[in-house]
Amino acid sequence: MGTVTAPWKQLLLNALQSNSHLRHSSYLQFATIGSNGRPANRTVVFRGFADTSNKIQINTDCRSHKIEDLKQCPFAEICWYFTDSWEQFRINGKVDVIDGSNPDPMKLQQREKAWFASSPKSRLQYLGPTPGLPSLGDQSSEVPTSLDPSAGPVSAYCLLLLDPDQVDYVNLKSNERLAFSRKNINEESCWSSDRVNP
Amino acid sequence: MGTVTAPWKQLLLNALQSNSHLRHSSYLQFATIGSNGRPANRTVVFRGFADTSNKIQINTDCRSHKIEDLKQCPFAEICWYFTDSWEQFRINGKVDVIDGSNPDPMKLQQREKAWFASSPKSRLQYLGPTPGLPSLGDQSSEVPTSLDPSAGPVSAYCLLLLDPDQVDYVNLKSNERLAFSRKNINEESCWSSDRVNP
Repeated sequence: MGTVTAPWKQLLLNALQSNSHLRHSSYLQFATIGSNGRPANRTVVFRGFADTSNKIQINTDCRSHKIEDLKQCPFAEICWYFTDSWEQFRINGKVDVIDGSNPDPMKLQQREKAWFASSPKSRLQYLGPTPGLPSLGDQSSEVPTSLDPSAGPVSAYCLLLLDPDQVDYVNLKSNERLAFSRKNINEESCWSSDRVNP
Repeated sequence: MGTVTAPWKQLLLNALQSNSHLRHSSYLQFATIGSNGRPANRTVVFRGFADTSNKIQINTDCRSHKIEDLKQCPFAEICWYFTDSWEQFRINGKVDVIDGSNPDPMKLQQREKAWFASSPKSRLQYLGPTPGLPSLGDQSSEVPTSLDPSAGPVSAYCLLLLDPDQVDYVNLKSNERLAFSRKNINEESCWSSDRVNP
């Protein structure tokens, strides 16, 4: 299936570029539907696009609630606000959850690549206790302080790939808003864009 | 029904204080369940707590999609990341949608109070064309450039009141995480808090 570079992708790359002096410019809010039927929303870090595709990579812990959420409803919406350029991207799509048990060798390779692309320090957090569970006193002794840099992904590490099919872009400086949506025609993806009222 | 000041409220007020030099410190991401059954997520502005309660005030346009969303599922989750102090608040609760047709005089009064608390410039946007609809060329001539400052809320103005019942707090500097949850016992609200793994 052919991949067409989405028209919103260049806008997003420009926003990343013009806000790159801010550490938090790669932080975005990732909303899912919780297993209790309520919305859930948390900050995650953008880990780039998968190869040359439009798919957004996010690292997460297999033991976090969002994994359960995505098993029940595989859709998510990213809200990404750039604090310096006053631009907002709302990116909606289906999420592929890639853990170590994935049967597809290509996907396991993507997961391994993303693991090695993350810093040794951020890899360590997957060896800590289960996120969200009650903290049993001082567990710092249980968390290893180093990890062999050549060791592959640990079992708790999970790669999320969000495949956008709707993007809403707002520029609060120019007061412009664009709505992008993807249609699949004969195995080809095609994006339309419309100017809408802010 | 008695209102107990929630233990997370002071943490939030401290975070607002320590990040107040940043214009975007009052911006938060508000997730709902869209009418298509997918998550929806957008940036909104914190407009303070309603009087002395724990309820969070947000201004919105009656014609925006989130109003439809909240009619079908009245729950929302706020994700609020403070970029200077590295603190995140995830605030989940039921949302009361207060528009001009609300039958409760007390709520209409709250709506009016919130309207006058917002700047004359921000009031003007409720007189613009319907947000999200296709933009029909240059409509700047249709949007009034001033509004009588003593005029009450226009029909498109809506006040949202989120009544928190679960709050998840993470401090990325100290690596601490606290889970707060509300229980109602004999008409009294009571909050529990637990240290959980980050």
